[in-house]
Amino acid sequence: MSTTSDAQSQLLGLVAYASLSAFEQTAAASAIAPQVEQKLVLGRLAAQRFTHLGRLEATLAAAGGDVTRAMAPFVTPVDGFNHHTRPEDWAQALVKLCVVGGLVADFAAEVAPHLDEASRDILLGSIDDGELAAEPGRMLSGALAAEPEAAGRLAMYARRLLGEALSQAQRVCAAQPVLTEQLTGRAGQGGEDLAAIGDLMARLAGHHAARLAEIGLA
Amino acid sequence: MSTTSDAQSQLLGLVAYASLSAFEQTAAASAIAPQVEQKLVLGRLAAQRFTHLGRLEATLAAAGGDVTRAMAPFVTPVDGFNHHTRPEDWAQALVKLCVVGGLVADFAAEVAPHLDEASRDILLGSIDDGELAAEPGRMLSGALAAEPEAAGRLAMYARRLLGEALSQAQRVCAAQPVLTEQLTGRAGQGGEDLAAIGDLMARLAGHHAARLAEIGLA
Repeated sequence: MSTTSDAQSQLLGLVAYASLSAFEQTAAASAIAPQVEQKLVLGRLAAQRFTHLGRLEATLAAAGGDVTRAMAPFVTPVDGFNHHTRPEDWAQALVKLCVVGGLVADFAAEVAPHLDEASRDILLGSIDDGELAAEPGRMLSGALAAEPEAAGRLAMYARRLLGEALSQAQRVCAAQPVLTEQLTGRAGQGGEDLAAIGDLMARLAGHHAARLAEIGLA
Repeated sequence: MSTTSDAQSQLLGLVAYASLSAFEQTAAASAIAPQVEQKLVLGRLAAQRFTHLGRLEATLAAAGGDVTRAMAPFVTPVDGFNHHTRPEDWAQALVKLCVVGGLVADFAAEVAPHLDEASRDILLGSIDDGELAAEPGRMLSGALAAEPEAAGRLAMYARRLLGEALSQAQRVCAAQPVLTEQLTGRAGQGGEDLAAIGDLMARLAGHHAARLAEIGLA
């Protein structure tokens, strides 16, 4: 029971810090968007992501938790990911929003079946971008149409994003065994299941490759 | 009548684009904040500033206007200001938030008496940061206490912020005579009143200097 609740609070902390990071990255894309219409859309998406964070904070507080403490274990890996994958221009910022958004959605779909209903609702609710979900992809298509010769460079950047994401995810798995057992459906079984983690990462990488091919960045 | 309504729509456009810029700058400060608690506070402030923009958008739409068109005349000067005053670190980001927040509040207080009630409410409501208003100043005090030797460098940056703000404001005045007449209380009198503009800018510069002295950046 205490294990479940630890894992739940850790999941909330992970999703909260990921939401904060998503907010910052989306706002940064808004700041370099070439058109005011794009700024308005990305700004709305960023603000919405911050709202998710507020809800997670309230959920944690209601359970006697604290969002800052819950997020603490995830600051170094998430910041490390952002530090090593800083977008250099507008097109890269869009690729990053699309790639990370896709990875997060795939990850959530993978782990959702292993979660209790409350955790599942929190996770899926926090990554739901609603009607704005397709906007970064639409903007990326526009940027690629305007500058098709950028595709090779952007495809390389997308591969770097995946590599860095998986390497930071492994770091989290190693440091947070209780959370990891929960996410891989092995709660209470003890020990690291490297095979389950490896399988999950391989599936995420496969989805990522398919998504890039669809965007035209294979 | 058409002049008043033009001026009102221009004022809405100016405040809207300034809110969008404030959102972006505050989110950028959140992204480089050293502590997670600071990220949460600045993120909340940024999201709140985007909410103001949404309200301005709705007000414009209700009057048959369009926020993107209304903001258009202010994109170049506001972006120019941001381009020439890009903060290089956390302390500069805080100085920029404090200086710009102060200038905006002083500007609003100066022009509010010349506005009709609806415009005044929109302007003052859009810059009201509520309980978060004092946070950037508090963080700046903390940053200065931790690194007092930065004061000279930051004072120079603050002077650059003022100079760039006034130079872009003059650009707006020259390009938007109807709005300028409204803001200086000379609506319908025609012609540029360079003296009134000059007086206003001198008063803003005076308030700015007093504020910097108070922060310890004189």
